Amino acid sequence: MTALITLGKQAKQAAFALAQLSEKQKNNALMIIAEQLETHAPAILAANAKDIQAAEQQGLSAALIDRLLLTQERLQAIADDVRHIVSLADPVGKIIDGGTLDSGLKVERVRVPLGVIGTIYEARPNVTIDVAALCLKTGNAVILRGGKETCHSNRILVEVVQQALERSGLPKFAVQAITDPDRELVMQLLKLDRYVDMIIPRGGAKLHELCKQHSTIPIIIGGVGVCHTFVEQSADQERALSVIANAKTQRPSTCNTLETLLVQASIAPTFLPKLVDYLKPKNVKYHADSTALSILQSAGADASPVREEELRQEWGSPDLNVVIVENIEQAIAHIAEYGTQHSEAILTESPRLAQQFINQTDAAAVYVNASTRFTDGGQFGLGAEVAVSTQKLHARGPMGLEALTSYKWVCSGDYVSR
Amino acid sequence: MTALITLGKQAKQAAFALAQLSEKQKNNALMIIAEQLETHAPAILAANAKDIQAAEQQGLSAALIDRLLLTQERLQAIADDVRHIVSLADPVGKIIDGGTLDSGLKVERVRVPLGVIGTIYEARPNVTIDVAALCLKTGNAVILRGGKETCHSNRILVEVVQQALERSGLPKFAVQAITDPDRELVMQLLKLDRYVDMIIPRGGAKLHELCKQHSTIPIIIGGVGVCHTFVEQSADQERALSVIANAKTQRPSTCNTLETLLVQASIAPTFLPKLVDYLKPKNVKYHADSTALSILQSAGADASPVREEELRQEWGSPDLNVVIVENIEQAIAHIAEYGTQHSEAILTESPRLAQQFINQTDAAAVYVNASTRFTDGGQFGLGAEVAVSTQKLHARGPMGLEALTSYKWVCSGDYVSR
Repeated sequence: MTALITLGKQAKQAAFALAQLSEKQKNNALMIIAEQLETHAPAILAANAKDIQAAEQQGLSAALIDRLLLTQERLQAIADDVRHIVSLADPVGKIIDGGTLDSGLKVERVRVPLGVIGTIYEARPNVTIDVAALCLKTGNAVILRGGKETCHSNRILVEVVQQALERSGLPKFAVQAITDPDRELVMQLLKLDRYVDMIIPRGGAKLHELCKQHSTIPIIIGGVGVCHTFVEQSADQERALSVIANAKTQRPSTCNTLETLLVQASIAPTFLPKLVDYLKPKNVKYHADSTALSILQSAGADASPVREEELRQEWGSPDLNVVIVENIEQAIAHIAEYGTQHSEAILTESPRLAQQFINQTDAAAVYVNASTRFTDGGQFGLGAEVAVSTQKLHARGPMGLEALTSYKWVCSGDYVSR
Repeated sequence: MTALITLGKQAKQAAFALAQLSEKQKNNALMIIAEQLETHAPAILAANAKDIQAAEQQGLSAALIDRLLLTQERLQAIADDVRHIVSLADPVGKIIDGGTLDSGLKVERVRVPLGVIGTIYEARPNVTIDVAALCLKTGNAVILRGGKETCHSNRILVEVVQQALERSGLPKFAVQAITDPDRELVMQLLKLDRYVDMIIPRGGAKLHELCKQHSTIPIIIGGVGVCHTFVEQSADQERALSVIANAKTQRPSTCNTLETLLVQASIAPTFLPKLVDYLKPKNVKYHADSTALSILQSAGADASPVREEELRQEWGSPDLNVVIVENIEQAIAHIAEYGTQHSEAILTESPRLAQQFINQTDAAAVYVNASTRFTDGGQFGLGAEVAVSTQKLHARGPMGLEALTSYKWVCSGDYVSR
């Protein structure tokens, strides 16, 4: 535990210094980081090559190795992303609301950094720089815990960042990494509530469950999206087809991809054959309940019976569950049972039913006549995205810079008492 | 676990119904609750008498018994508080921000109920009605777990509320209580993350620590206030005296009471004797570091050496710790080490030092030339207070109705795709 306590104390100390910085000072440090990433590109790529070699020796999948891989172009994109963060407005210091009390006390709620943020993530080395830069922009110190597959890359990336911090007169411990691959350190990080204010896990359902069970620090749950689209009987069927195609097939590996289509029983016999035709070029494979199955098979679709556990998972592929529901209540109940509170859509011409769906569907983003694929910090105009939260406290849905801040009640008076 | 799962499911179900209600429907239910509390006053007071009798038999302290006690007047005040909540604006449905994307998708962040709130509290039966009414106003279902000392009172209060809910056409399970005194049920409640969205513990440091260690549900940490006031050397000493007297002696049992006075060394010899004079009528007992001790004793104060553990606790009485610091950095460091992130004050004539204190003091409320006693939902104009949070996520400081809500990204379009 000693090593982590040292990290925690150093981070807290750095956070005190960061809390005093102007936006200009933080931006200056970010510009130097971007420049240093370019300067040290050869060394960074060499370290990354070691990670790639180790990954190949361990027989990791091609997809995973591609996520690990840094190239000159990817590194340039990472440096450019840091410069983009410079261009975003700093939320720190923004006055949320306030006023003067009868006693003469002026009370304002002012945005402040959270303090120290811990993040636990997997393969991608770009996350290291991305999260470090977003935390720095908002005046937070950060403790990074990347996957062991990227330990060489992360070590040099953090070194470059720390050198850049020192060059810009900032505390180098504002950005620290746990590079020892011992998994026990993750458990220790989750208990470091004395020094760490928030944990952002970026990974699959298992990582989030681990954090939920063991963390004594507030965590942001998210990332896993079992998203639904409900085709209500009044929907414009022709236009519904393109929305469904987009939601399912534009990029099936993303968390805002449609997994289960809910179709109102009254329109299933007419609508599903149109869907099969429309999605034919996309090679969609259907997993259907018994009623839907016979319609889909009659229409010549590649369809099989859906298993209950398939309703609770992300396919990550152009596979689509299809379930028939009698009415909107059944659709809402299905989503409550199987959804992950990420992104849920209704296609309907009824404003009343749309409002009921909005009110009663418990999700970060609720869509009316639109594709769930829009749930994204960039799409929503946040400028950046540090994670997608599926919980309801602090931040919900795409998290931008504001989600890395808290507020303080700042009160001042002329020696006033209650 | 079965009993609690049933409660959880019923609460979730009720939350779905509440999410569809208008402010008018919720206010109507609250008015009926207030009226029914008055109608059933004799039965409520009779049940409360049983709790009081049991408390006396168990030899509970007079202070605790007073907190348990309901009288006709207190019950009337509780009903009046419910009517006051009716008069507050409902945050649900408020649009936080939003706009229309280039794609034509309209995106708005809209305030929504959190869903199901669990609360764990101690003796006071008024909390039962207060929390139930605040949750109902914001469209949340609530599971109440009061102290075993109030089990008779709570049982009938919840019965009255549930009858009132049914009379107003609302689901009675919107308000439920765990009245079985088995402590194991608290542990089970903390793991009910499938159904409960937020836990608000209202009690001492031990209860909060228990929740932090065991809850898989996001919790609101708070309530414990080891508050400081730093007298910087430029402070107006005469006017500082009244602020300190207010912060320490107005109501010493509250969490926003001053516990430790930090005095800059350069002014300690002149300032402390004035303080002793000024506080003489208040019978303040001093616990001081060695330098302060000799000054205080020379000035005729009732003073003894402060023990380190006394710097980490709430006195709850007119006892005051006094610690000498060399400069603002030492004051900030002392607060970082011993504070509970509740309310911290600086008395100074220097705007620069005031700003440094504001930036670097990690607390829900930071005061310049004012008493820490102002940290309160009513004082801050929130209209009501469900708790005081000392954490940084979701809500910080006094929590009003808004802190019982989350937001949803509500997106609508004309069958738009990304």
